[in-house]
Amino acid sequence: MKINVVENVLKANDAIAASNRQLFDQHRLLAVNLMSAPGSGKTSLLEKTMPALGPDNPCGVLVGDLQTTRDADRLGPFALETTQINTGQGCHLSAAQIAVAIKNFPLDRLAFLFIENVGNMVCPAQFDLGEHAKVVLLSVPEGDDKVAKYPTLFQQADVILLTKIDLLGILDYDVSRVRNDLSRINTRAPLIELSCRTSEGLGDWLDWLQTQRASRTVR
Amino acid sequence: MKINVVENVLKANDAIAASNRQLFDQHRLLAVNLMSAPGSGKTSLLEKTMPALGPDNPCGVLVGDLQTTRDADRLGPFALETTQINTGQGCHLSAAQIAVAIKNFPLDRLAFLFIENVGNMVCPAQFDLGEHAKVVLLSVPEGDDKVAKYPTLFQQADVILLTKIDLLGILDYDVSRVRNDLSRINTRAPLIELSCRTSEGLGDWLDWLQTQRASRTVR
Repeated sequence: MKINVVENVLKANDAIAASNRQLFDQHRLLAVNLMSAPGSGKTSLLEKTMPALGPDNPCGVLVGDLQTTRDADRLGPFALETTQINTGQGCHLSAAQIAVAIKNFPLDRLAFLFIENVGNMVCPAQFDLGEHAKVVLLSVPEGDDKVAKYPTLFQQADVILLTKIDLLGILDYDVSRVRNDLSRINTRAPLIELSCRTSEGLGDWLDWLQTQRASRTVR
Repeated sequence: MKINVVENVLKANDAIAASNRQLFDQHRLLAVNLMSAPGSGKTSLLEKTMPALGPDNPCGVLVGDLQTTRDADRLGPFALETTQINTGQGCHLSAAQIAVAIKNFPLDRLAFLFIENVGNMVCPAQFDLGEHAKVVLLSVPEGDDKVAKYPTLFQQADVILLTKIDLLGILDYDVSRVRNDLSRINTRAPLIELSCRTSEGLGDWLDWLQTQRASRTVR
């Protein structure tokens, strides 16, 4: 019985996700789902990304956290509109939460919608939100063994960002181990190394975003 | 219906957890459940802890990960016995998994049983494993905002370990913010600051473990 319930939940989620995606397509915006462990730098990345995209690329943000509006407070100044979704005990965002959050959202004025998921490397991987692209962050201080230990998340990634690379000289970290583990489970997604402190690698990330958006809106 | 299923799962889990705890009590060992985000240093802590406890305190280890035996491989040399529990898609350990894992475990020869949970700050908080104490790790590079964002986990902690404090001088981190957030949700658990790289603070952690064990086995 347990399995049936889970299957139904996932099926219902996928139907709502498909309807979210249709709405995003109609508005010709790129919706991005950012996933990682807590503290990998999702919010810091968006603080750097939105100003760099500039006024020609208005952004909306949906942020998932169990509690607090701390991330929304940080991102609000850089976005056209920001909504904090507090999940309570919930370990991931769901498509239904996104559908509610975007009801009065200015989708027609957005170039990008960033969805910052709950910090968790397991559960968010199972729930399609209707995004066009899944971005998975992995920070240097988390250690170079995480790709093999959390394969489901990394398998689904459209791009993987290795963040906090300014700590590479300070911590023992073997980037080739990450690349090697990735080569076994996901050969499609590029790995971009970056640091929000030094801005190194941010250009590659911005190029990736713009390429993704162009490939969506040209059709 | 969904809620009923979840309630039944939690009730079933609690019953098995109580039976695990009874077994641990009979064998006069201290069972500790270590929880944190991925990469906070649970395995590194145990690599330091078990040799420091010495031959008078034989240790057993159960390690939960979605995939791989990497953590068990690291901890095996320091423990009397180690079992890796691969959860597949599972985002937390459950009491039933522990019950199976300890069936042929040398409980009568152990002073401590360390249970390293799946790296996740949300789901493990809901599942009693039968442990005597819940240890929550929080590493400096994760940022000083995590206590307020993941309150359920920190509310349940019997001790909180702030790890990787050798990075305090390198990263922007405000320990007083952590203490302030903790003072609102958990005034019972001490906060121990430590670094597995420099060994700073490890003595406080070892003292805490021995005190806990003494308070259990004296009765």
